Amino acid sequence: MNSQEIHDTIYQMGQQANAAAHALAVLSAEKKNDILRAMAAGLRSRSGEILEANAKDIAAGEARGLTSAMLDRLRLDADRIDAIAGGIEQVAELADPVGEELDKKVMGNGMEIQQVRVPIGVIGIIYESRPNVTSDAAVLCLKSGNATILRGGSEAIHSNRAIADALQAGGEPAGLPANAIQLIPFTDRESVAVLAGMDKWLDLIIPRGGKGLIETVVSLARMPVIKHYDGICHTFVEAEADQEMAVKITVDAKTQKPSVCNALETLLVEEKIADEFLPKVAEALWAKNVELRGDDRTQQILGDKVVAATEEDWSTEYLDYILSVKVVADQDAAVAHINTYGSQHSDCIVTTNEENAERFLRTVDSACVYHNVSTRFSDGEEYGFGAEIGISTDKLHARGPMALRELTSYQYRVRGNGQTKS
Amino acid sequence: MNSQEIHDTIYQMGQQANAAAHALAVLSAEKKNDILRAMAAGLRSRSGEILEANAKDIAAGEARGLTSAMLDRLRLDADRIDAIAGGIEQVAELADPVGEELDKKVMGNGMEIQQVRVPIGVIGIIYESRPNVTSDAAVLCLKSGNATILRGGSEAIHSNRAIADALQAGGEPAGLPANAIQLIPFTDRESVAVLAGMDKWLDLIIPRGGKGLIETVVSLARMPVIKHYDGICHTFVEAEADQEMAVKITVDAKTQKPSVCNALETLLVEEKIADEFLPKVAEALWAKNVELRGDDRTQQILGDKVVAATEEDWSTEYLDYILSVKVVADQDAAVAHINTYGSQHSDCIVTTNEENAERFLRTVDSACVYHNVSTRFSDGEEYGFGAEIGISTDKLHARGPMALRELTSYQYRVRGNGQTKS
Repeated sequence: MNSQEIHDTIYQMGQQANAAAHALAVLSAEKKNDILRAMAAGLRSRSGEILEANAKDIAAGEARGLTSAMLDRLRLDADRIDAIAGGIEQVAELADPVGEELDKKVMGNGMEIQQVRVPIGVIGIIYESRPNVTSDAAVLCLKSGNATILRGGSEAIHSNRAIADALQAGGEPAGLPANAIQLIPFTDRESVAVLAGMDKWLDLIIPRGGKGLIETVVSLARMPVIKHYDGICHTFVEAEADQEMAVKITVDAKTQKPSVCNALETLLVEEKIADEFLPKVAEALWAKNVELRGDDRTQQILGDKVVAATEEDWSTEYLDYILSVKVVADQDAAVAHINTYGSQHSDCIVTTNEENAERFLRTVDSACVYHNVSTRFSDGEEYGFGAEIGISTDKLHARGPMALRELTSYQYRVRGNGQTKS
Repeated sequence: MNSQEIHDTIYQMGQQANAAAHALAVLSAEKKNDILRAMAAGLRSRSGEILEANAKDIAAGEARGLTSAMLDRLRLDADRIDAIAGGIEQVAELADPVGEELDKKVMGNGMEIQQVRVPIGVIGIIYESRPNVTSDAAVLCLKSGNATILRGGSEAIHSNRAIADALQAGGEPAGLPANAIQLIPFTDRESVAVLAGMDKWLDLIIPRGGKGLIETVVSLARMPVIKHYDGICHTFVEAEADQEMAVKITVDAKTQKPSVCNALETLLVEEKIADEFLPKVAEALWAKNVELRGDDRTQQILGDKVVAATEEDWSTEYLDYILSVKVVADQDAAVAHINTYGSQHSDCIVTTNEENAERFLRTVDSACVYHNVSTRFSDGEEYGFGAEIGISTDKLHARGPMALRELTSYQYRVRGNGQTKS
């Protein structure tokens, strides 16, 4: 494929997606749910083809020497396909945000202004290896009335194509508009650049993957991007903390699932209680094989077993059994540290002092702030949103857990009887 | 100034703005209103210096041969300064969106999730000639708890600097944090590029100006941009319209103030009534000296006085006494035309048929859709928002009139008593 062909193919997909989006925008919730259930059935009935396609990706991955962890993320089996289909059926059960009235008022001149939730339109999703994202992302976009253009990674191209085809073909008999779910057939870098530049047809682009991918999309995109960057999450144990609770919350946030963005990366301890608290929390963390990297004061208190933290540690998302630890003079120092080194994701204070807790919640500039709750709860499902498309570290449009509501825009509908300005 | 100095100066302003934003975020509404009133007083008390600075800009503009219209936009006098100060006092009277509770619920595990409006943080505003934007934009951002970095055009640099200084100096004795309002001292293109690339410190960038400026910012920006593009607004006169009302609305939307984005640019008339309606509306428009550019059918009905519309006319924002006119087969054709050639700004249907009206409102993909109301009402003040920063033609975060509420983000505050996932 030459550049012109890549460009033309993607722009044609854009125009088709735009037509699909207009058709999707007026479907009732009931209709969309019927379509979703038909898509789930379509996926199940085509599981043979999907597994065959997946076998090609696995073989290619083995030939390319992918690690076993990477191959595992790539691999599908009957259970995994059933789980993907089950996920679609769960989305069908969620409330439809489209059509919700956000505001309504009658102005002095008699015109009535109604603000109503509407779909965004066409959403581009750029993602890496896991083929289940093909379905998860497309389905959430569809439920909220949006058309999707998907661009997956090369390792999963056969699986992604089989899944996208199964969803579109499965949904069409139930009323899914043509081209509502399209997968870009190219996996080179150029297709990312073309998609990110296509603001004529794309209303939003969401990169789902590592920092490198997000950086690339941010620098190329001409339309809004919603980013799901690192979670450098903190827990601040304040002088008046219930220390037993603080140990429990720290251990949970660090070790319950260290590989995710809402896991704890830095523990901040108020100086007044450091001598008493640090040995307790260290014992519990060491029992879970967590490596501690501390500042001078932490090393003084806990001894040689603590590695010296470097400046870089404070802004590192380990996603591993490693925790940086710092003793801070007071709450202001803790908040300053979080607002400087954190990633505005999820941060917690443990204290019995309500006033200090409220001050922490107000002054920490992060998407999710917690008082006496593990940061691991930053999650669409835990927030009662059902499925989520990710945790946005942006401040515009969507912040924190991003679910169906965040996949919508709004429109003002104004009704009158001849109002003019003259 | 060399590139490195421009870069360093703007990044230092960014860091300072970030500190100011954290201080602003926790100010009470009362405090911010005191500051705003002090800023208004500061502006009035420094009107001598501002007029002196403005005289320099006017002299430079005359030397450079600016048109008299451009010079008029640039010119300040005692009345205009008083009007700017009055505008600040009006913003002080508006409700503060910060701190508003958007949602609150208690989950099964007992944790309480509260969603609260918070400021965005640091907002960059890039604008062109009018010096009053310096105050209007900074003041709306401040009321909503945000710090601003302003970058005005070269023609108004002295006036802008004098106004920004007066606002900051006037506000500080009342508690305005240092560096809450900063003006970039450079007016070259490079400063736009540096600002648009500074996602480390800038949360949002808003270009206020012509299409060229917006395009430049869109292609350079690494942070969210809210765009205020053209308004290619339509009125569709449906077969069952009250034709007298349709004439009134058409004339108002086109001629009451043709130079603004919510003015009418294209009239669509349903074929069934074209023979009857077009002569009536043409007579009223010609009486106001509006030039009509029509499709074949319009020319057949109205004769030689109608210029033949080209393909380009359908996507042109005239901002002048010119109107393109097209006869369409039915409502579907009208909606398809609007969704193809429009700019998703403001579009209207005139009809007595409620069902058709509702279908139009649902299927036209624009920020503001009207039934029997002139498109000229797309305006923050008319919508009851008080002052506005512009009309967003974006679909994310802010759509349509963008006011104080749209200058905020939100944060989830979660309170518990030791909840963990383990």
